[in-house]
Amino acid sequence: MSLIENLQWRYATKKMNGAKVPQEKLDYILEAARLAPSSSGLQPYKIIVISDKALLEKIKIIANDQSQITDCSHLLVFAAWDEYTDERVSKVFNYIMDERSLPRTAMSDYKESILNLYATEGKEWEAHHAAKQSYISFAMAIAAAAEQQVDATPMEGFNSKELDELLKLTGSGYKSTVLLPIGYRDEENDWLLNMKKVRTPKADFITEMNMENTATLQVSNEA
Amino acid sequence: MSLIENLQWRYATKKMNGAKVPQEKLDYILEAARLAPSSSGLQPYKIIVISDKALLEKIKIIANDQSQITDCSHLLVFAAWDEYTDERVSKVFNYIMDERSLPRTAMSDYKESILNLYATEGKEWEAHHAAKQSYISFAMAIAAAAEQQVDATPMEGFNSKELDELLKLTGSGYKSTVLLPIGYRDEENDWLLNMKKVRTPKADFITEMNMENTATLQVSNEA
Repeated sequence: MSLIENLQWRYATKKMNGAKVPQEKLDYILEAARLAPSSSGLQPYKIIVISDKALLEKIKIIANDQSQITDCSHLLVFAAWDEYTDERVSKVFNYIMDERSLPRTAMSDYKESILNLYATEGKEWEAHHAAKQSYISFAMAIAAAAEQQVDATPMEGFNSKELDELLKLTGSGYKSTVLLPIGYRDEENDWLLNMKKVRTPKADFITEMNMENTATLQVSNEA
Repeated sequence: MSLIENLQWRYATKKMNGAKVPQEKLDYILEAARLAPSSSGLQPYKIIVISDKALLEKIKIIANDQSQITDCSHLLVFAAWDEYTDERVSKVFNYIMDERSLPRTAMSDYKESILNLYATEGKEWEAHHAAKQSYISFAMAIAAAAEQQVDATPMEGFNSKELDELLKLTGSGYKSTVLLPIGYRDEENDWLLNMKKVRTPKADFITEMNMENTATLQVSNEA
């Protein structure tokens, strides 16, 4: 099936049935997430995979008691850098240069320029910036799961600070950004399954602009 | 081809050849972006499509003079809400409820809860949150382009404030978040084309955790 067919098939599964996702499908989803592009190729994020029911029970409590946390097969926790540092960026750039058989100095000027740019925005911005990169990877995992006919629930409704404490991320340099339980839909008990998928109509979603016409975009405040 | 094959095929094209992307491929890419999931289904973003060369020339200047801006076929500008308001959220939720033939009040409590939650984080956080959602859509556009064998360059290197001024987004409720020029690679002149794709090795990218082992994640500060 095509990406569009997969995106039409998928939905934010509200009730999962506890069935296991085979290892090769899990690996496929993680590999798609790993191949996602990121700003300057830094991939300032990782994925934590959890299937331990006892740990998932604890996470469920700090994720608004959402049943998918414990009814999923695996929970993917995306975690991103809390800031950019010379050391972190150098480590990645050095690895890239080594893999490409280029001198490590080849990216020095570029590294300085992005670090200077990021520094002017501040550490909070840097954490958001790294988190944004993790969302690209997150999206690829969502698309990959759908391609594998594996259900998934993009999930932001959790207390990231408490999750960081629980997973001992606090102080590690990583912060949890977003969750993706993967598993299989419980067809009889998922209220969302047969609801119409609703998206912004194409005419509202896309705006063409040219030199004569750059002023048509406006958030409507009429409800 | 599979998503993984498509992700292996794609790369951040550094030099494009000016060839046009057919309308049906452009439409496909935009439709994948439109189908992307977002937090609470709010889709707090839009895509602006630009192919007017005169306008692209102006954008290039505020995008570090990157040649893809003018050598692409179409530039996709992702723009996200600058904040969440009752009116904006109500408009989307009302539309969803209408499309599902449900009473508009069905999401009232949920709306209150997310607005209250977002308000505690502040307007800057809200803009970042909306921008993160646009990155999911952005990623789907990247995956769709690759599936269509259309090249694309994920691009953050631009002055968003100046772009917002140029496109008259300032004051519209939208802020530009990220760019995606789409087009075709200039095989003879793209220095990145034959470079090895480098990603964090799987063993570093993925960490399994369980109750006994939640403390292995650490950003290495060794370069």
